[in-house]
Amino acid sequence: MAHKPYDPGDPTSVGLVKLKHYTFDSLTLESGEVFGPVTIAYETYGRLNDEKTNGILIFHALTGDAHAAGYHTPQDQDPGWWDDMIGPGKAFDTNKYFVICTNIIGGCQGSSGPSSIDPATGRPYAMRFPIVTIRDMVAAQKKLIDSMGIEKLFAMAGGSFGGMQLLQFAADYPDMMELNILLAATAAVDPREIAFDCVARNAIMNDPNWNNGDYYDKPEQPVIGLRTARMIGLIQYFSEEYMRERYGRDFQKKEQPDFSWDIEFSIEGTLEYNAGQKFFNRFDPNSYLYITKGMDYFDLSHHYGSMRKAFERTDSKFLVISFSSDWLFPPATMKKIVSALRRAGRDVSYTEVETNKGHDAFLEESEILTGLLSNFMEHAL
Amino acid sequence: MAHKPYDPGDPTSVGLVKLKHYTFDSLTLESGEVFGPVTIAYETYGRLNDEKTNGILIFHALTGDAHAAGYHTPQDQDPGWWDDMIGPGKAFDTNKYFVICTNIIGGCQGSSGPSSIDPATGRPYAMRFPIVTIRDMVAAQKKLIDSMGIEKLFAMAGGSFGGMQLLQFAADYPDMMELNILLAATAAVDPREIAFDCVARNAIMNDPNWNNGDYYDKPEQPVIGLRTARMIGLIQYFSEEYMRERYGRDFQKKEQPDFSWDIEFSIEGTLEYNAGQKFFNRFDPNSYLYITKGMDYFDLSHHYGSMRKAFERTDSKFLVISFSSDWLFPPATMKKIVSALRRAGRDVSYTEVETNKGHDAFLEESEILTGLLSNFMEHAL
Repeated sequence: MAHKPYDPGDPTSVGLVKLKHYTFDSLTLESGEVFGPVTIAYETYGRLNDEKTNGILIFHALTGDAHAAGYHTPQDQDPGWWDDMIGPGKAFDTNKYFVICTNIIGGCQGSSGPSSIDPATGRPYAMRFPIVTIRDMVAAQKKLIDSMGIEKLFAMAGGSFGGMQLLQFAADYPDMMELNILLAATAAVDPREIAFDCVARNAIMNDPNWNNGDYYDKPEQPVIGLRTARMIGLIQYFSEEYMRERYGRDFQKKEQPDFSWDIEFSIEGTLEYNAGQKFFNRFDPNSYLYITKGMDYFDLSHHYGSMRKAFERTDSKFLVISFSSDWLFPPATMKKIVSALRRAGRDVSYTEVETNKGHDAFLEESEILTGLLSNFMEHAL
Repeated sequence: MAHKPYDPGDPTSVGLVKLKHYTFDSLTLESGEVFGPVTIAYETYGRLNDEKTNGILIFHALTGDAHAAGYHTPQDQDPGWWDDMIGPGKAFDTNKYFVICTNIIGGCQGSSGPSSIDPATGRPYAMRFPIVTIRDMVAAQKKLIDSMGIEKLFAMAGGSFGGMQLLQFAADYPDMMELNILLAATAAVDPREIAFDCVARNAIMNDPNWNNGDYYDKPEQPVIGLRTARMIGLIQYFSEEYMRERYGRDFQKKEQPDFSWDIEFSIEGTLEYNAGQKFFNRFDPNSYLYITKGMDYFDLSHHYGSMRKAFERTDSKFLVISFSSDWLFPPATMKKIVSALRRAGRDVSYTEVETNKGHDAFLEESEILTGLLSNFMEHAL
């Protein structure tokens, strides 16, 4: 998201928004454990119509949150993470639609997660928080949607980890949506991603300041472990092509190497910057453990026997968009989903967007996406 | 390398071999620093002929060593790392050729490196060892070859990091070889590899037991940091395809997940096993820092203006072999080297081997490689 301070006169912005909370008693998790109370943090943009038929549920990516659009305070220098796509006249047009975005459970931006206070002890759950899967995350979101009296969403949209939630939601609650917009995702996390997640978790859990997860009241925090984990993520989100074009073998602010242990190459400087204190300030290391763990378990076929069987459950329509330089969930991975949707007899449109922006293109190619999504939402029904 | 204990009756084995050492006064490094004395650990197999024209120099990969073939003791359960390729009647036929393999400087298997004793202090160099580049590594190897009275090698061969050494050697000492056999390598390390190396070094240097590199006499060693670094390497060496076929989403010794923080998936177990104590026992964390650092600097064009100009310096012939599922240095990367060799007017043969073994295929596809290499060496001159 580009730097864009709050401007009260911007007619395309949803303006000032508030994070809201919904709490319910308990949830039976995929592991069998019954956990509660459960709080979901969420934001909404636009107005729910009287028929309650204009709801759109947006799912955030791995380190995202419920703040998808607008500003929390007039002093905010940056809007929500998908502000280019959500607002009056934008792809998710808040003049027409009621847009909902929730923070996933296990996260750290208001929904129940390891940094939340356990009411039984008055202390953060830390690693006493239960392991939650994507099925559990969407089950919690479903409770929120129910509480709003929405029986059927007009649409759902999600990229990356958000796309996995979308697929699970569509299979588990097949009658609850008309349209699905899936970006840069997979229907099952493959062993390479599990391997990267495993290394990332190792890095956090081996940080001596991690302290078995009980670091919240300690002077030293596991900043370094989270930094390593985040760097591993960033390498996956960047495309090879993007790294070559943008950074190449350029030295960091110099023409020749120093032959020192300092940062020599621009790409090293970029990783250090993007994975450093700035990231720690907005993300909890324990949540990184829980969310990657939840991601590892994701396999749509596991619950329903096959992707096709999962998709046969729903009559909703799909728009599937992949990005040519996405190295994490490349077009080939997305095409498997499209094939399964077609085998299941579903109505599916597929587009591969040419871009050098890698996996993050689902956040950055707003102009192209606006055209594709608007067209789909206007004509699909 | 498959498990294969010493067998004194095996006619295809070079049998028992000894690690030897060659020391010279000093080397002017690429950084400008003059460093010495320099020791090179090496092994040889076969006999140097009277004309000294049958020498073959083998370069090892990132965590390899000089022990390429045979056994150090009759109790050894495993031979050297390229034993399938080196021996009487094998691709590098020791009945005909005199095969030399050296441990790179910066390494930890006998050549001068951070774990070597600094004669000035009587203590390990640790991080006081100078930063060495691949150009420095091959300069040291050249001194060894000179000391043997060899003016021209019959051939050189190297895969991965060994292939980078081969390219640098061929450009820097263009009249010193007849044939070059290049496997699964690159002519310049790209930003994605620099990024992975940067994360690996961060993991080691942030291990509290690393102690700025001075851990050699301490009770606690930076095992955990090296483990994270090694895991990152392993993910790159495995192919996506291999991981999918071999491990998939299989659970570790169970049918269903436990929803616990223990190892859930087979791929996690494999990483933990291959990156654990076993690897630490044979590899020094400081050497991992020095070698990845040296690799980051590798860019053949940087020294000579372009790959083409580098290759125009030598009249030697090239066999270039890539592996279809190599994710680290894929066929596309190897084809760029082949194109540059052709533009430079060099005699080059190129083969892409179909395999699911990923980057490590250069170590594992011995049967196919034996055919290709034998044919090249017999007919190239």
